[in-house]
Amino acid sequence: MVRAAIIGGSGYTGLELLRILGGHPGVELTAVTSRQAEGRAVNEFFPSLGPDLDRKFVSLADPSLEEAEFVFTALPHKAAMEAVIQRLSAGQRVIDLSADFRFREASVYEKHYGPHLDHDLCAKAVYGLAEVYAEEIAEAELTAGPGCYPTCSLLPLIPLLRTGLIEPRGIIINAASGVSGAGRGPAIGSLMAEAGEDFKAYKVASHRHRPEIEQELSRAAGEPVKAVFTPHLVPMSRGMLATIYVRSGAAPEEVRQCWQEFYAGQPFIRVLEAGQAPRTVALRGSNACHISVFKDDHTGALILLSALDNLVKGASGQAVQCLNLMAGMDQGAGLSPLGLMP
Amino acid sequence: MVRAAIIGGSGYTGLELLRILGGHPGVELTAVTSRQAEGRAVNEFFPSLGPDLDRKFVSLADPSLEEAEFVFTALPHKAAMEAVIQRLSAGQRVIDLSADFRFREASVYEKHYGPHLDHDLCAKAVYGLAEVYAEEIAEAELTAGPGCYPTCSLLPLIPLLRTGLIEPRGIIINAASGVSGAGRGPAIGSLMAEAGEDFKAYKVASHRHRPEIEQELSRAAGEPVKAVFTPHLVPMSRGMLATIYVRSGAAPEEVRQCWQEFYAGQPFIRVLEAGQAPRTVALRGSNACHISVFKDDHTGALILLSALDNLVKGASGQAVQCLNLMAGMDQGAGLSPLGLMP
Amino acid sequence: MVRAAIIGGSGYTGLELLRILGGHPGVELTAVTSRQAEGRAVNEFFPSLGPDLDRKFVSLADPSLEEAEFVFTALPHKAAMEAVIQRLSAGQRVIDLSADFRFREASVYEKHYGPHLDHDLCAKAVYGLAEVYAEEIAEAELTAGPGCYPTCSLLPLIPLLRTGLIEPRGIIINAASGVSGAGRGPAIGSLMAEAGEDFKAYKVASHRHRPEIEQELSRAAGEPVKAVFTPHLVPMSRGMLATIYVRSGAAPEEVRQCWQEFYAGQPFIRVLEAGQAPRTVALRGSNACHISVFKDDHTGALILLSALDNLVKGASGQAVQCLNLMAGMDQGAGLSPLGLMP
Amino acid sequence: MVRAAIIGGSGYTGLELLRILGGHPGVELTAVTSRQAEGRAVNEFFPSLGPDLDRKFVSLADPSLEEAEFVFTALPHKAAMEAVIQRLSAGQRVIDLSADFRFREASVYEKHYGPHLDHDLCAKAVYGLAEVYAEEIAEAELTAGPGCYPTCSLLPLIPLLRTGLIEPRGIIINAASGVSGAGRGPAIGSLMAEAGEDFKAYKVASHRHRPEIEQELSRAAGEPVKAVFTPHLVPMSRGMLATIYVRSGAAPEEVRQCWQEFYAGQPFIRVLEAGQAPRTVALRGSNACHISVFKDDHTGALILLSALDNLVKGASGQAVQCLNLMAGMDQGAGLSPLGLMP
Repeated sequence: MVRAAIIGGSGYTGLELLRILGGHPGVELTAVTSRQAEGRAVNEFFPSLGPDLDRKFVSLADPSLEEAEFVFTALPHKAAMEAVIQRLSAGQRVIDLSADFRFREASVYEKHYGPHLDHDLCAKAVYGLAEVYAEEIAEAELTAGPGCYPTCSLLPLIPLLRTGLIEPRGIIINAASGVSGAGRGPAIGSLMAEAGEDFKAYKVASHRHRPEIEQELSRAAGEPVKAVFTPHLVPMSRGMLATIYVRSGAAPEEVRQCWQEFYAGQPFIRVLEAGQAPRTVALRGSNACHISVFKDDHTGALILLSALDNLVKGASGQAVQCLNLMAGMDQGAGLSPLGLMP
Repeated sequence: MVRAAIIGGSGYTGLELLRILGGHPGVELTAVTSRQAEGRAVNEFFPSLGPDLDRKFVSLADPSLEEAEFVFTALPHKAAMEAVIQRLSAGQRVIDLSADFRFREASVYEKHYGPHLDHDLCAKAVYGLAEVYAEEIAEAELTAGPGCYPTCSLLPLIPLLRTGLIEPRGIIINAASGVSGAGRGPAIGSLMAEAGEDFKAYKVASHRHRPEIEQELSRAAGEPVKAVFTPHLVPMSRGMLATIYVRSGAAPEEVRQCWQEFYAGQPFIRVLEAGQAPRTVALRGSNACHISVFKDDHTGALILLSALDNLVKGASGQAVQCLNLMAGMDQGAGLSPLGLMP
Repeated sequence: MVRAAIIGGSGYTGLELLRILGGHPGVELTAVTSRQAEGRAVNEFFPSLGPDLDRKFVSLADPSLEEAEFVFTALPHKAAMEAVIQRLSAGQRVIDLSADFRFREASVYEKHYGPHLDHDLCAKAVYGLAEVYAEEIAEAELTAGPGCYPTCSLLPLIPLLRTGLIEPRGIIINAASGVSGAGRGPAIGSLMAEAGEDFKAYKVASHRHRPEIEQELSRAAGEPVKAVFTPHLVPMSRGMLATIYVRSGAAPEEVRQCWQEFYAGQPFIRVLEAGQAPRTVALRGSNACHISVFKDDHTGALILLSALDNLVKGASGQAVQCLNLMAGMDQGAGLSPLGLMP
Repeated sequence: MVRAAIIGGSGYTGLELLRILGGHPGVELTAVTSRQAEGRAVNEFFPSLGPDLDRKFVSLADPSLEEAEFVFTALPHKAAMEAVIQRLSAGQRVIDLSADFRFREASVYEKHYGPHLDHDLCAKAVYGLAEVYAEEIAEAELTAGPGCYPTCSLLPLIPLLRTGLIEPRGIIINAASGVSGAGRGPAIGSLMAEAGEDFKAYKVASHRHRPEIEQELSRAAGEPVKAVFTPHLVPMSRGMLATIYVRSGAAPEEVRQCWQEFYAGQPFIRVLEAGQAPRTVALRGSNACHISVFKDDHTGALILLSALDNLVKGASGQAVQCLNLMAGMDQGAGLSPLGLMP
């Protein structure tokens, strides 16, 4: 039994951490902080949480926060930075869900997000893509949970780049997310009357998940990789799909075999059979990622498809998977590959 | 560890049984039958189910069906009848999710559904409203899982009728369900292009869940009770809400106290605090039922609100709850009050 | 050709006025004001508006506002009050879409909304329920557009109360609205991730449309009428349905006949045939209201169903219908009974 | 005033033709046929249609069909073929909404759809992309309404290929449609419980709109063009977005200028300003197509975005636009660029 705390528990990634930890057999929750919801009962603020979550949101100064061995920081970027540094100096191990420690080189972070307080810590943090960096995560003091789009894009691409099955040039990632990806902040664009029945591209050629994706693609390829990345918003609450176009002479069967080998024994990566395409609805609440591949015989292009739940494998579920690795527990503890469908 | 089988596993209640039993610590699944999907892998037919559900749907004649101690029948009414009788004669205990054994008097069934094969069995079957008939369910050979609308309507009403806090006359139940309640059969009315962005009443004053509700209201009141019941279809996948108008001189606080006492210690009934109204989105995938009460000071009417997930507490979750009671396990085993929100 | 202006054009009722007037053969738009969007091109702010709406939102001080003979005020209540008074003193005739002049007695308004600046004007304003008060509207200097819930509830009820076909006691209105009813303001409860897949009652026994409904029911009945009114939020963008329970000895055929006579020749009221229930999806963008009636033979209760588009017949469409009446045009000019389905 | 008839009026394209023609100032409807709905009142079958559409669906043998000068065939492919040939021999001019006459070379049709009855007619039919082939359409006896995906893809691409602003090689079309595109036939995949909250690719590298797109791209480029085409299904009723990746040295401003010139004076093509991305919700019910362009400075790729309503500009609206051209009316008669938003 490990003791864990959540800093910033009143957003959707906080809620999802609470839901998952609420069913985790090996974690005791010592504290959940929220500036916005301090003093309110957790299961009244979030009525989806059960009767045992009748504890209250506390402030960052609450002593219960110190009792934890592990701390999840679920704050917006910038706000996370300070909290992470503080928790590390208190001797706690941290899983950060923000973008603040995802870049090995602070200069890349600063180009896209602004000034960073601790360049050395950036280099030390481990990128929490659980199936790829399990060993480093297990030892990490600080794990940086990957973004949802990067997780969805990288899981199919990394094995293929590492083995050289695909070309590192000309990768195009066309991705789409449910609206919970925009968070729980009140914004006109996230209103149901605006986002419902709407499908649109946004932040075209300028989304900040692109450099994060490129960092990891480059590492996998052993050379600098550039990718086109176009995110879209889908009128649904949860779910993410990446449709990825790559240049390759490989047959789909070779791609599937490469994935099967790379992810052998991994409970959350499912390589779909030939002709099957992933569906976001099958992954609601699941920590799984479904991947598949098609060949366009006409042009020779390979089309990779990858789907996950943006709040689970794309955020809080993978963060718990990292906790499990860091604490020496089974990496799937408290997590499920089952989705809630319909 | 008990052995259970599912007959008719390729509809939504079958899928939901598979999802729940997939995480149940005390149940081993011996067989899942489906005429429609026989021979297909369960987790390919339903991609939301995890890698361990790679078994195949089998036919009713498959010997693995005989190995079960408990059998869930998730067939349409009429089709269920025969399967139930057969399983009982094979010495298995049955939880039926159809309407076929919900009526104590076969004549009432026959008025609304057509001829019944076994009138005596109707009288012996136990109505599987878990929080109300737990003791009878524990002993039952055959438990009849209640309809979704009846479960949602009865849970708030029964305690109030038993204690006489409300009048048995003039009850109006205005209820609404997500579209999964219409099942997985292809029907124009269930198409997303028809049901999306649509809200409508259906089967007004003629839905077959009404006599089922009245049977149980009458039993609770100790006198014949008639109720108005109007179901509606909501453009969402899951979820059910009943808005119930009753005549009563009781104050809301008395109603809440009555519920608190009646449902003391029950993990799945949550009485909301004064001023709180239940939300279906908070109950997705949960086996809980949230109830609350408002007083219309202007007219004196009491307004009861009750919400649940139609596929869980309204169907498969409650069926598993009944299995747990019948098998002497903790009634909450494999079930969760937590919802998947958003 | 009449000249009209819109004050407060950047919310959903403003947008809907712009859409309707954009296709109106007899109206020339002189000005559209918005504090929030001043200086921005209308068809860039609202990309659904066509190329000819490339004019800019202006301020209240813009001289183009003075050129109008008719002014629509689409402001929040309180804010509308002052604008209305100002426009009337400028000699313009006004259609107000807020709640500020819906109550004949200012004291009722003040009880529910707070202080009112002009009690006399309240008594003079005409309640803009177009099919019921057409003659008064034609002469009015100030028409108060009814609320969406009141329009939907009153259209079926008024003829029945006037003719005494139903009892004025015991009326229960169970109503539901799409999320655009909550407006375009950013609020957590209106986010798609919150409201999608959610169905819930809100402001139970306390919504401010209730006194408005009661004012008109009382007027129709010739005696004070109280009603229970419970609004719900439906996960769809547009649409409204009222399910109304009334006490009556009348047969459904009598009810339909009463409606047919009362609304004879009215292009926007459609009495559905026996057994038909209205669907909100059939009324998207339409100015029609569909009504139908069912008898619950079991209890004797009558169930009335009424549906409309909350932004059209429930707000901006009816406001244009009032303009047409006030300007002596065909009351249906620029409006359509056709809905956009699916 | 021209006389027109609809063959196959009970699907969604038929419904949309009825809605549009219901408001068309220059068309008199002589007949609407439907095998499925024969004898039923049109406005009862489709409750969204107004009171004047109380005529009945008739059979193909009904004499009223012969009174039309123009006939819309809104049948599935194969079924359309015969009806088209029959109508032409009756001396009527035809606008076909199926795929049956979209291919100049019948051999291409036959490769993807099966045997064709009249190869010569294929060569004579005019491809009904209204803004591109207006002159040929005006003279046509038979116009073949383009597919929804082709319309959405071709409108931004054709001007750029004609002027050589982009390379004809390496075009990737990532497109997505609302569920009404799958038609009104009952299919499990189109159920709201399946398609709601789901986003998925389908018919990857095998959709039959691809050869249609390539036929027209090749014609525009003056050389054979191959394209990758991946359709997706979006959980919304209507709407279509194409995200298109092309190779080009052109600056976005050059692309916009090319479009502005090519589509000068066209009421339904809107070139969005720099930085604006199209939204499907803004185009509900509109006959407009919104296009925009972004440059990925990082890789040099151009990203084109194109959105429309799949049932209007993608089907029935464009068909009416073709009728207008064929009948010598204003091409926008009965059509609107305004969308119903929200």
